[in-house]
Amino acid sequence: MTIQRMKNLEAFFNPASVAVIGVSSDMTKFTGRTLKYLIKHGYPGRIYPINPKYQEISGIPCFGSVRDLPEVPDMAFVQIPARLTLDAVRQCAERGVRAVLLHTAGMGETSEEGKRAEQELLALAHASGMVICGPNSGGMVNLVDRVVLTPVVAMELDDLKPGKVGLVSQSGGMTGALITRAYSRGIGFSHVVSTGNEMDLKCSDYVRFMLEDPHTSAVAIFMEGLRDTDIQPFLKAARTAMEKGKPIVVLKVGKAEVGRKAAASHTGALTGSDEVYSAMFRQMGVVRVHALEELFETASMFSKTPLPAGDRVGVLTTTGGGALLLADEGGFLGLKFPSPKADTARTEALGLPSFASTANPLDVTMSGVGDGFRKSLRLFLEDENFDIVVAVVGTSAQFYPELGVRPVLEAAGSDRPLLAYLNPLADEAARLLEAGGVPAFRTPESCAHALRALVHHARFVGKHAQRKRALPGLSADTDKARGILGSAGQHLTENQSKQLLSLYGIPVIQEKVAHTTREAAEQAEVLGFPVALKVLSPSILHKSEAGAIRLNLSSCVEVRKSYGEILEAVRSHDPEAEIQGVLVQKMAQEGLEVIAGISRDPQFGPVLVFGLGGILVEVLRDVSMRLAPIGPTDAEEMLDEIRSAALLRGFRGLPAADRGAIVDVLLRLSQLAGDLGDEIEAVDINPLMVYPEGEGAVAVDALVIKRKGE
Amino acid sequence: MTIQRMKNLEAFFNPASVAVIGVSSDMTKFTGRTLKYLIKHGYPGRIYPINPKYQEISGIPCFGSVRDLPEVPDMAFVQIPARLTLDAVRQCAERGVRAVLLHTAGMGETSEEGKRAEQELLALAHASGMVICGPNSGGMVNLVDRVVLTPVVAMELDDLKPGKVGLVSQSGGMTGALITRAYSRGIGFSHVVSTGNEMDLKCSDYVRFMLEDPHTSAVAIFMEGLRDTDIQPFLKAARTAMEKGKPIVVLKVGKAEVGRKAAASHTGALTGSDEVYSAMFRQMGVVRVHALEELFETASMFSKTPLPAGDRVGVLTTTGGGALLLADEGGFLGLKFPSPKADTARTEALGLPSFASTANPLDVTMSGVGDGFRKSLRLFLEDENFDIVVAVVGTSAQFYPELGVRPVLEAAGSDRPLLAYLNPLADEAARLLEAGGVPAFRTPESCAHALRALVHHARFVGKHAQRKRALPGLSADTDKARGILGSAGQHLTENQSKQLLSLYGIPVIQEKVAHTTREAAEQAEVLGFPVALKVLSPSILHKSEAGAIRLNLSSCVEVRKSYGEILEAVRSHDPEAEIQGVLVQKMAQEGLEVIAGISRDPQFGPVLVFGLGGILVEVLRDVSMRLAPIGPTDAEEMLDEIRSAALLRGFRGLPAADRGAIVDVLLRLSQLAGDLGDEIEAVDINPLMVYPEGEGAVAVDALVIKRKGE
Repeated sequence: MTIQRMKNLEAFFNPASVAVIGVSSDMTKFTGRTLKYLIKHGYPGRIYPINPKYQEISGIPCFGSVRDLPEVPDMAFVQIPARLTLDAVRQCAERGVRAVLLHTAGMGETSEEGKRAEQELLALAHASGMVICGPNSGGMVNLVDRVVLTPVVAMELDDLKPGKVGLVSQSGGMTGALITRAYSRGIGFSHVVSTGNEMDLKCSDYVRFMLEDPHTSAVAIFMEGLRDTDIQPFLKAARTAMEKGKPIVVLKVGKAEVGRKAAASHTGALTGSDEVYSAMFRQMGVVRVHALEELFETASMFSKTPLPAGDRVGVLTTTGGGALLLADEGGFLGLKFPSPKADTARTEALGLPSFASTANPLDVTMSGVGDGFRKSLRLFLEDENFDIVVAVVGTSAQFYPELGVRPVLEAAGSDRPLLAYLNPLADEAARLLEAGGVPAFRTPESCAHALRALVHHARFVGKHAQRKRALPGLSADTDKARGILGSAGQHLTENQSKQLLSLYGIPVIQEKVAHTTREAAEQAEVLGFPVALKVLSPSILHKSEAGAIRLNLSSCVEVRKSYGEILEAVRSHDPEAEIQGVLVQKMAQEGLEVIAGISRDPQFGPVLVFGLGGILVEVLRDVSMRLAPIGPTDAEEMLDEIRSAALLRGFRGLPAADRGAIVDVLLRLSQLAGDLGDEIEAVDINPLMVYPEGEGAVAVDALVIKRKGE
Repeated sequence: MTIQRMKNLEAFFNPASVAVIGVSSDMTKFTGRTLKYLIKHGYPGRIYPINPKYQEISGIPCFGSVRDLPEVPDMAFVQIPARLTLDAVRQCAERGVRAVLLHTAGMGETSEEGKRAEQELLALAHASGMVICGPNSGGMVNLVDRVVLTPVVAMELDDLKPGKVGLVSQSGGMTGALITRAYSRGIGFSHVVSTGNEMDLKCSDYVRFMLEDPHTSAVAIFMEGLRDTDIQPFLKAARTAMEKGKPIVVLKVGKAEVGRKAAASHTGALTGSDEVYSAMFRQMGVVRVHALEELFETASMFSKTPLPAGDRVGVLTTTGGGALLLADEGGFLGLKFPSPKADTARTEALGLPSFASTANPLDVTMSGVGDGFRKSLRLFLEDENFDIVVAVVGTSAQFYPELGVRPVLEAAGSDRPLLAYLNPLADEAARLLEAGGVPAFRTPESCAHALRALVHHARFVGKHAQRKRALPGLSADTDKARGILGSAGQHLTENQSKQLLSLYGIPVIQEKVAHTTREAAEQAEVLGFPVALKVLSPSILHKSEAGAIRLNLSSCVEVRKSYGEILEAVRSHDPEAEIQGVLVQKMAQEGLEVIAGISRDPQFGPVLVFGLGGILVEVLRDVSMRLAPIGPTDAEEMLDEIRSAALLRGFRGLPAADRGAIVDVLLRLSQLAGDLGDEIEAVDINPLMVYPEGEGAVAVDALVIKRKGE
């Protein structure tokens, strides 16, 4: 983004003057509401309603067109029919308007004609340097500077105080729902923008603005899918977010096919593989949530609380059941709930009744409301057994909100995170807590999810320096590698594939190519028995089905016999098959079978893939992924992330696997992806046989597929 | 439960007169609130406050003790210190009070002394026939008959109209939270009871009362764990629920260790394995939810909507993003979102703008609010492509609730389920919808979860007749089976285990016991090569570790050699080992390895277990369970329930497995559990080798463990 565009983006969010093009004088109407809300929320700049039908609206002079305005407005909000839009925007460009928000719908998302119009609008933007939001944007709200430019009925709410969360929504309809839900609980936004069709300004442009904005401490995104050209900018924004310590929290549609399809039809966004998005978020430290209200709850929590040093949670409660649900869900999500230190829990010190348990969750019971609760919270916050403390407040929070939450507010301000879960329906108490800097949760589940997000993010941040460490200095003869690719068909043979992997230092099973029975037997003797024989043919993609594999051959006699059998089987399977020879391969010793490879995502390019081998893993789709390139920390995380990760660490008498060897293979694949990523569709090492710690790993079978047309 | 107790339980919920023992004249105090709420909510019966300190409270004559009352009250609510409780209850028993609610805490849940006092109370109950709720009960609320007996502050709410959901809570603190949260959205209860320590009346007693109650259509339970003696009554109640078509919905704590421990300390309940509870719920048609508000949302939904014929959901929306989230979550949970029938979707018929998509979710956009939305809903409800319709209402629902939900209410009343999700914060709209019989959801996630519960429950009910079908007439020679058990040690040998399984008709691999090298070789010839050799010794539990197994022996030479090696290995592993011989076993042909067995749960007794074989399944704990006995439908469901179920149906060229053979083995294990369940700790067939459809299955290895002391 050029500096001029960046400045214009600032004008978009905080214009000194605004033209509202297509305004109605009836403020109950859709086209009248934007003006109404702009005035209602105290916009301090100059307002220019544009509508040739009126002289003035609500006492404000109205103009026929942008051409007629006495000054050049910083920004124009456009809500006229699609067919009139191009002309209005052209006028804006001519006059030097810096930013345009196109609320107008029915353009690129609905027809080819609309797409063409968008192209013309985009050309206008590029020529003039103006920035355009939308079309089909639900509007923009800047609560820091009181710029409200949206007809969204949520703006009927009074007294919308700015918060520290910036909200970027790829759905217009969600902005209202998110605003009303968040404000009812005292969670506020600094800026809100609905991105619409993202013809010009893209999702990550807004995110980057918010990351630079001093009033914003965390960014929440409702995402349907990033535009192809927005992938790299988004990755860059995620890196900026990490540098600035302003977390990005994302609620993304597309977990299911129906969501992906609907998102695509909704704003014309094409979304890539949701699994790859998830992997990218993990890799970049972007927090993904899976429930509507968790989007603002989690982002707001990050804007208010320090990061914890670990995952040990102490729960203090005035009510039994609610704390129990919270801890149960938290435990299920992997958080720890250790006992408080013995001296902390001394009931005499707390003035608790003798039957109050000293467990965690610690129930101070109703007698603890008031001073006992505050004292216990302070003790818990100082307790070295805890990294985070959660206060669970019972019924008092609903009917005597001030009374119920006072102990929590009084205990706040430690350098450890203090969160609250309110067991009854207690929005007022939540507002008091949020105003006092204590993130307050509405359900035990959302509180548990937020705790997990907090712990995971802290862990990610803790590894940030180590993650940024320079990649290991791997290098390979890329000319030679391109030579192999060049001489091969679209599917490399097993032998070619392994040659390519070898160039990158990936250990492959010893093998030789035989062209006669005798050669095969000689090579088997050299390699040492037992050996395997496989046909080497670019025409045979599924060697097993063609009967072209013989395993565990332990003598020259068996090798000779198998050689003939294989050739015969291949010929009867496909008389036309091109046979380049027979691979004589040393049988790999048994080990843990894993898969490692590269898969090309249409949006994100080469993606590294890791998982356990075997058909069961395929059924369960238990793999981890990362965008290339990766460093050692990423690779370690890939190993830890699969559901069956326990197997790698040794399980039921099985030895721990050589994790270092797997990490090394993944890093070398990453290097290969970096060098040849544009030429390769997929790399599949299956299996990579992994041996006990210190004993390495070896690629037993491998397949490299080139990109079509390369 | 005797008829007298059942009648007294009715008096507990609907007493003609009530004594409130230990009442304070200060109605803001905890001990004053019960009386306050009883009056406030219009209790129509006679009230007798008991407190020797006062003559009257709020104009109602006050008495010194139950002995002094002018009539025998139906019920007594007791909120005096623990040490005074026994005397008060004794007076109640003497006068013939029919039901007592002990709100008093600090008894069995906190001390041995308290436990002893509870035993005396229980003896009083048994002797007099009175029923006792608690101690440590949070109270009881009957909104149908306006009996409110609880100090829970939620009763400050006015105008609590009865709903059709009965609520049984094993946590007192949760009743208030559930009541306030439900009522804010127009979801009502018929009865609410906090069960406390369940000294006398147990969880399922209340459930059964509610199932008999004509005002209750569904029962919600907040469960920490069933008492041991309440297991069979609960199963019976679940069967009654199914017969009466009144679903039971459960939110249960104990998914994680922290929750199990905390629940145990909380009310003294000991909870069994959470996985077995889950299996039991599935088996009995009890709906388990996993979020606080889903407890009343789901129960209320069942009380208002017919069951769907299938899992195809049509979504109509006035706002894009919200419907997208709902469908995405629903799709993720396995629901289907097919396209509407072409003629249904015709936009002209709906008067929708041309750019409204004809997809599902179908976005009628804002122009559709009003008549277009109502028309579309009717068309969707008549569309044969849908079993359920969900209306998603946008911002209008918040700011113009009547306007926003009118189209939905007007479309309601079809014989297909119609649910609503409100995208903004719209409690008033939710109340209007619920009042009109349309279940309304607050978040897209809870709506998706409810949809899944609705579809799953409908499927369960649909199979109910078939599930009740008499079990297949298996029978076995139980004397012979007991003989095998009697002659064996605690761990049966592999051979003994298989003999026992054979008695029940479970196919086992052919094997013979050899006592000499020669015998082994001869037996191998008879069985046919290849064979396996394994030591037969009650002292060796882990044969592999002892080096006491040889597989794939293909000649007499190898058998003779292995025989010697095994004996030597065993002797060096454990010189004291008792060696009964060597098993010569036909090698099983390769197939799909599964495990099937019986495991004894401390609360539920014998539990049938099924899963895929192999260490990966152990790591992932991918097994399904059912309480014994089971029928064929249960067994089929066990097969379908594992995450890796796709493997059984054939996957990537693997043939479909012989499901019938697995079902048969599970049914025979069920029979074994029925006959010998009290004598057996575990049965473990691992692996059961399963062959392609029609080719059967065979137990390759098996272990039976007797219960200690049997």
